[in-house]
Amino acid sequence: MVNTAAQNIPAGRVLIDPESLERYRHDEAEWAPHGMPLAVVRPKDTAEVRDVVRHCISHGVPLVARGAGTGLSGGANAVDGAIMVSFEDMDQIIRIDPDERLAVVRPGVVNDDLRAACARVGMWYPPDPASSPWSTIGGNVATNAGGMCCVKYGVTRDYVLGLEIVDGRGEIVRLGRQTAKGVAGYDLCGLMVGSEGTLGVITEITVRLRPARPVERTIAGYFDSVVAAGEAVSAITAAGVIPSALELVDRHCLAAVDAWRNMGLSADADVVLLGRVDTPGAEGDAEAALIRDCFERAGATWAAQSTDQQEADALFDARRLAYPALERLGPVLTEDVCVPRAAVPEMLARIEKSAARHDVLIANIAHAGDGNLHPLIITQPGDDAARARAQLAFDDILDDAIALGGTVTGEHGVGLLKMRGMDKEMGPAALSMQRAVKAALDPHGILNPGKVVARADAG
Amino acid sequence: MVNTAAQNIPAGRVLIDPESLERYRHDEAEWAPHGMPLAVVRPKDTAEVRDVVRHCISHGVPLVARGAGTGLSGGANAVDGAIMVSFEDMDQIIRIDPDERLAVVRPGVVNDDLRAACARVGMWYPPDPASSPWSTIGGNVATNAGGMCCVKYGVTRDYVLGLEIVDGRGEIVRLGRQTAKGVAGYDLCGLMVGSEGTLGVITEITVRLRPARPVERTIAGYFDSVVAAGEAVSAITAAGVIPSALELVDRHCLAAVDAWRNMGLSADADVVLLGRVDTPGAEGDAEAALIRDCFERAGATWAAQSTDQQEADALFDARRLAYPALERLGPVLTEDVCVPRAAVPEMLARIEKSAARHDVLIANIAHAGDGNLHPLIITQPGDDAARARAQLAFDDILDDAIALGGTVTGEHGVGLLKMRGMDKEMGPAALSMQRAVKAALDPHGILNPGKVVARADAG
Repeated sequence: MVNTAAQNIPAGRVLIDPESLERYRHDEAEWAPHGMPLAVVRPKDTAEVRDVVRHCISHGVPLVARGAGTGLSGGANAVDGAIMVSFEDMDQIIRIDPDERLAVVRPGVVNDDLRAACARVGMWYPPDPASSPWSTIGGNVATNAGGMCCVKYGVTRDYVLGLEIVDGRGEIVRLGRQTAKGVAGYDLCGLMVGSEGTLGVITEITVRLRPARPVERTIAGYFDSVVAAGEAVSAITAAGVIPSALELVDRHCLAAVDAWRNMGLSADADVVLLGRVDTPGAEGDAEAALIRDCFERAGATWAAQSTDQQEADALFDARRLAYPALERLGPVLTEDVCVPRAAVPEMLARIEKSAARHDVLIANIAHAGDGNLHPLIITQPGDDAARARAQLAFDDILDDAIALGGTVTGEHGVGLLKMRGMDKEMGPAALSMQRAVKAALDPHGILNPGKVVARADAG
Repeated sequence: MVNTAAQNIPAGRVLIDPESLERYRHDEAEWAPHGMPLAVVRPKDTAEVRDVVRHCISHGVPLVARGAGTGLSGGANAVDGAIMVSFEDMDQIIRIDPDERLAVVRPGVVNDDLRAACARVGMWYPPDPASSPWSTIGGNVATNAGGMCCVKYGVTRDYVLGLEIVDGRGEIVRLGRQTAKGVAGYDLCGLMVGSEGTLGVITEITVRLRPARPVERTIAGYFDSVVAAGEAVSAITAAGVIPSALELVDRHCLAAVDAWRNMGLSADADVVLLGRVDTPGAEGDAEAALIRDCFERAGATWAAQSTDQQEADALFDARRLAYPALERLGPVLTEDVCVPRAAVPEMLARIEKSAARHDVLIANIAHAGDGNLHPLIITQPGDDAARARAQLAFDDILDDAIALGGTVTGEHGVGLLKMRGMDKEMGPAALSMQRAVKAALDPHGILNPGKVVARADAG
């Protein structure tokens, strides 16, 4: 069966050895189940992807597309007997066009590599998930990845103009456009973004770019409680300022980063807020002063605008490294709820209560300015009782987010971990529409089956 | 049959008199065909909309949802025997929440009314189609309306966070979210935006708001040719400035506005470019100066930053009134192509050639900064030969836009007028996906049938 799939693909790019299968069979969501794939294929172009999709249709084999495997919901985890399609050999930046403010790339391009290439011609690709040194644009599009700057600049979907995909019938299809605007037909390009490989396999991506922006100012504030920090966030929103980043990192995270990288960041504070402003000139100075003022009025024990770019970058690097640093300490169950901004203090308080109720350690990082919180439930390796308690805390947090008018996933995607939560959030009528779309665009049921939504006929 | 539909709806809100049927049977696309509706229903709430949808499902009656009827592609035109659902009695602004930066409205709210209500609490709803004094948010969402500020601030889809709809099965469904971010399931909220009532009937809309912005600076430039003006537009993009508006108006449009409103605007120029900048402070001054400089270097015969806000507003009012002013002079066949920014001069040159080739008058207004052009083909009332020539010019312009890498509709929608053009633009594989989605979400085929895409089973 593998030989048929690979009839046009050289042996070196079809992997069936146990080590390779093991390496590609799951993403970073270690709590999500994963099966054993049949093979890993590393196509070099769209025609090869189409060949694999057609093979899967003919033989009823599941196909799981995969970027760098940095996903946090299990969306790229193997289904038993699946062919994993991995895009490391389709990592070309095809074109960067400053005049049209767009870039055309293959899915395997690493996020930071695209950003660096854009910077060399005076342009900027904004979406910046914490995984940006490793994660790929294809994976970012498949999960509609967010990041730190989306509080001001939006998420991946806001930057995807056009896609080439192989659809569920094995056809190569172009969706979207290469122009600034366009409303020809249904927005199937936007529909593909965030569909986690369940509606089509992405083979080329056209992203919108922005002109390079001025250097950011960084404002840091230390707080004695997550609730006080949450109030500072609400005050900033109420003041009408949109920062270019507004991140929350608690001392568990800073300590874990210090333990790993010895950056000397462990703060004399329970919670650190990191604000950034990229508005130029006097207006930017005023925004930075206002953010500092909001920190202080919400009870910050210390607040200042950084005068040292290296120090400011170190703070944001710590934020970016928090997740891998915590992972070193034991299995991490990652949350990704998003609540209305005004509900951030209440949601943070409820997370603290869940931690106490279930006797688990919960570290917090958050895109606080978006109300997108990442409570990280940490357990000791091998402690099954702790894992069970962590699962209870996880479920409580999802229920609390829904109760506060929020969503179970702000940016990580549904994958496997959030399927039950999504069912609760949506209700039967919306789920039925989701399933109808899945059945319409994946008529053979081969595209990453069992993720995001169950099929209509399985419904 | 009408009585069944209306069993719970008071007689005053079910219209079957010939005058009413005539009044509601078409939008502003006078070249598009329209049938004779069975009745017009003006529901007062979502439950009544659901009743009408269920009636239409039971009896196989087409349902056409309609806003203010300012559409330009025939999307809201009656299908023979249809029930027209008109939203003038569902025009409530339910909530404006400055802290969450969102508003919740019923579909019948007029665009300018929402903008004014937001301004009263220091907020701003950006999407500003030229029809904003009349068109409704429901219609704007159904067509994914653009406008003047979208060169910097995006189109309607970028502002729709959540929807309540009645779906093709007659169920009330909530799509999207009320939080800043969210990736739970497929983006069916985004899919509804721009689907022109063919996938569901919108009954409530949650839109994203921005903080109120500073007063804009206006820069005007006169040019001897559309091509020179197009080169000024390309130069602005290449300079890395994103204006808050960049509009092109030709002398046919200015003359028509003067003839109607006596505004004294007719310029000693073939083409006027109107730029706006809303960046505050010295940075904004620099941007305004740079735009003027781009105008001059592209060969403007006159260019200046307006020092008189009234004069600046009059120029933009003229742009906004161009379409109705031209309509007074005879039937207008409205184009809406969007091309890559660098192709604007070439596209404008081709439009001039089409006008000459087919011996028709073509006036031009354009969201030039987006490459979104509105050539307006004008004929004399009753001149059937001219109408036939206009249709040929229309088809040529669509072909030229596609050849230059553009789209047949930048913001007006497909409706009826652009169905053939969309077929050409997309090709069979993408069309097949469009039809599969239509069949999945409108299983009874009652939602604005025959618009945007034909149903899958109609091939």
